[in-house]
Amino acid sequence: MLKPEALNELIQVLGKENVITDPDELLTYSYDATAAMPRQTPDVFITPSTTEQVAEVVKIANKYNLPIYPRGSATNLSGGTIPIEKGIVMSMLHMNKIIEVDPENLTATVQPGVIIADLNNAAMEHGLFYPPDPGTVNTATMGGSVAETSGGLRGLKYGVTKHYVMGMKLVRANGDIIKWGNKCVKNVTGYDLTALFTGSEGTLGIITEILVKLNPMPEARKSLLGVFDDIDKAGNAISAIIRNKVIPATLEIMDNITINTVENFSKAGLPTDAEAILLCEVDGYQEAVDREAAIVERILKEEGAVEVNLAKTDEERDKIWFARRNALPALAQLRPTTVLEDATVPRSKIPDMIKAVREIANKYDLTIGTFGHAGDGNLHPTIVTDENDAEEMKRVEKAVDEIFEIAVSLGGTLSGEHGVGMAKAKYLPLEFGEAGVQLLRDIKEACDPNYLLNPGKIVQRRD
Amino acid sequence: MLKPEALNELIQVLGKENVITDPDELLTYSYDATAAMPRQTPDVFITPSTTEQVAEVVKIANKYNLPIYPRGSATNLSGGTIPIEKGIVMSMLHMNKIIEVDPENLTATVQPGVIIADLNNAAMEHGLFYPPDPGTVNTATMGGSVAETSGGLRGLKYGVTKHYVMGMKLVRANGDIIKWGNKCVKNVTGYDLTALFTGSEGTLGIITEILVKLNPMPEARKSLLGVFDDIDKAGNAISAIIRNKVIPATLEIMDNITINTVENFSKAGLPTDAEAILLCEVDGYQEAVDREAAIVERILKEEGAVEVNLAKTDEERDKIWFARRNALPALAQLRPTTVLEDATVPRSKIPDMIKAVREIANKYDLTIGTFGHAGDGNLHPTIVTDENDAEEMKRVEKAVDEIFEIAVSLGGTLSGEHGVGMAKAKYLPLEFGEAGVQLLRDIKEACDPNYLLNPGKIVQRRD
Repeated sequence: MLKPEALNELIQVLGKENVITDPDELLTYSYDATAAMPRQTPDVFITPSTTEQVAEVVKIANKYNLPIYPRGSATNLSGGTIPIEKGIVMSMLHMNKIIEVDPENLTATVQPGVIIADLNNAAMEHGLFYPPDPGTVNTATMGGSVAETSGGLRGLKYGVTKHYVMGMKLVRANGDIIKWGNKCVKNVTGYDLTALFTGSEGTLGIITEILVKLNPMPEARKSLLGVFDDIDKAGNAISAIIRNKVIPATLEIMDNITINTVENFSKAGLPTDAEAILLCEVDGYQEAVDREAAIVERILKEEGAVEVNLAKTDEERDKIWFARRNALPALAQLRPTTVLEDATVPRSKIPDMIKAVREIANKYDLTIGTFGHAGDGNLHPTIVTDENDAEEMKRVEKAVDEIFEIAVSLGGTLSGEHGVGMAKAKYLPLEFGEAGVQLLRDIKEACDPNYLLNPGKIVQRRD
Repeated sequence: MLKPEALNELIQVLGKENVITDPDELLTYSYDATAAMPRQTPDVFITPSTTEQVAEVVKIANKYNLPIYPRGSATNLSGGTIPIEKGIVMSMLHMNKIIEVDPENLTATVQPGVIIADLNNAAMEHGLFYPPDPGTVNTATMGGSVAETSGGLRGLKYGVTKHYVMGMKLVRANGDIIKWGNKCVKNVTGYDLTALFTGSEGTLGIITEILVKLNPMPEARKSLLGVFDDIDKAGNAISAIIRNKVIPATLEIMDNITINTVENFSKAGLPTDAEAILLCEVDGYQEAVDREAAIVERILKEEGAVEVNLAKTDEERDKIWFARRNALPALAQLRPTTVLEDATVPRSKIPDMIKAVREIANKYDLTIGTFGHAGDGNLHPTIVTDENDAEEMKRVEKAVDEIFEIAVSLGGTLSGEHGVGMAKAKYLPLEFGEAGVQLLRDIKEACDPNYLLNPGKIVQRRD
């Protein structure tokens, strides 16, 4: 329970209207977009507007030993925003200013509550864009996506969020306000704090300002679709594209279950007997795009695609991507609960991984559709199930365990872009070993010795 | 003094031939490539061959409280390898295997003693390359360049070392061996240890294996040279190139003093009355290169270059880069001591920075030639002086202080690519503030509580 003195101090700093304790309202902040997670209501929900207010709140939190959970739009997919130990949920949504777009230095400075798409709209006025593009680009915040190192469809060619963050302003667990980084492309002064805090999931500090790199917008793009009757052939095509020195902006895969579900859902005209579809987009200068599209078209045919479709118009292009965009919504409407994983493997291992997931689905009698970012090995095995069916959820849990074990054994990783949060914390020793988990814990405790910042995420306290 | 027991234990682990205590030989390890640094001979120089041996040595170092200084080819430019508190210098040069080049996943796995150029030769057999290219690419090791996040001429388009490291094997200060990272383009599992240890200058752990990303080799390139009678016009040209959405592989600048010195040294036919020359190379597909070269040529003319030279042949290209490659050797032969700095500013501030350096040179009656990586704002103001002239060295020190103050006040950074080491440790509060330096120290102590690993570099012990 929140002490009245603590509540009063919060109200003094933030004003009454920015401090919510109504139990019904607090329910809203007990979960995020992750399926099958425990829920917990916080003691209080607050909305600061300045870095200084955040620092004051951190001092109050220290005084009363209250955990703080920074929160953007809560599109998180690893339980990263759930206030599992109660305490303060801190919304960053009032800190939503685009402070600057600097076309001379190709940078932007934003507050954490800025929606990713809003940054892109501001950048576009200068012919620039911010490449990271998670599926939630229209709702997710910059703060959340930096805290989680969001990925998306353009990871192969453009990298992910961590490749774009150049600096930040941050409130430490002790209340210190620190700013670092700058508009210099090269910067090796001190440890790479920018990289350490990017992807730290709110467990090391609270980000209150972000400096990111922007890219010039490519002038042209072309999309292709290849239909395969064999998953290995699709895998070979992925490898052959890279081996031919083409790095597409986007290179996506959908397996047979996903294809059928999307087709039932949206009647997009997909070949429902296909084992896999590859969707590819190349971008850049017009001449380079023409050449790369021709190379990809040739490779798809050489590697045995039964059908290859190069979009000639914007409508044809939109039709290709319509199917991909519908993969998750289509799977999600099959059953009440969607467990969306993001186990990731080196791209040469994609066929192995897709086949392994299929075997796991058979073994545990589950429906798992797999789609994802083939070019960067980031697959989304998606289990459609029902949280209320305890027996089935046990099978789901076993299937998820096996998916992660196989991903790591294929040289992969537990999370390509969704983060560890609560959902994957228990699997960390698989990837890092106990000594590695201890190193993560040592870093956590150096930054936040009392586990005030987003406790229960990534590393747990020592037993 | 090294205890005989400690020496015996080192010999037991490494063999007599890999443990050197001869004082004359130890002198060789008392310095690196940094000018005007204190020297110190270590107690012992050792050369392990395996990760396990490194871990055993770390345990011995703990037992006898002996600092360890990992060392590659000692081309360091910030005093980073100097054994300032005596102890063990650990050469990584026997661990020099290229373990794998993987063309399917565009990665390479190497031991830390591999020379950067050797990795590039191995990658080239697969049509791939490793983009980071410090000036010392033919002598520097992968371990050293990862520890320092080396930059080089291709930073603007390709980024620097930290953008290519995907994982590593590391020995912690407590002797734990930990491996993390993998060939997945996307990986957000746990804190970004790869980024934290890359650029940590040997102060957080000892790197014994490195996984890096490779790029497909560009098929074509073109070089241009623009001569300017005004530093502001050169600065405008730099900005205009970027504004026109051309990101050159290399975009270099040389000021009047550097031009004159190079011309005296090498008779390359440079215009000695020019205030600045810009050197530019674009690369990629042939069609893209043709178009970008034409855009750069037009911009150089529009921005008032008095002469523009687009290389038509390989010989003409080599002639352009011959001048740039001679900048440092030419300046270095003017006087006995060369203080090579790497203060870095946002690229829009390059003219301001070059003019400020010129004023500082006048104020302290020093010769400072400035050249460097204009595209990424990473300048090398190079003071030619004489270490034995105490009075002049005092002026040099004041000039260096002012160069850093101005770089930071222009929104820049203390080091673009040479690291902090001993040379710049005292300036850290300028950039991070005291609270920021304390955060760096907290991270250091989380990883190495007893300051056994490369002590005296980056952060100092609390008073």
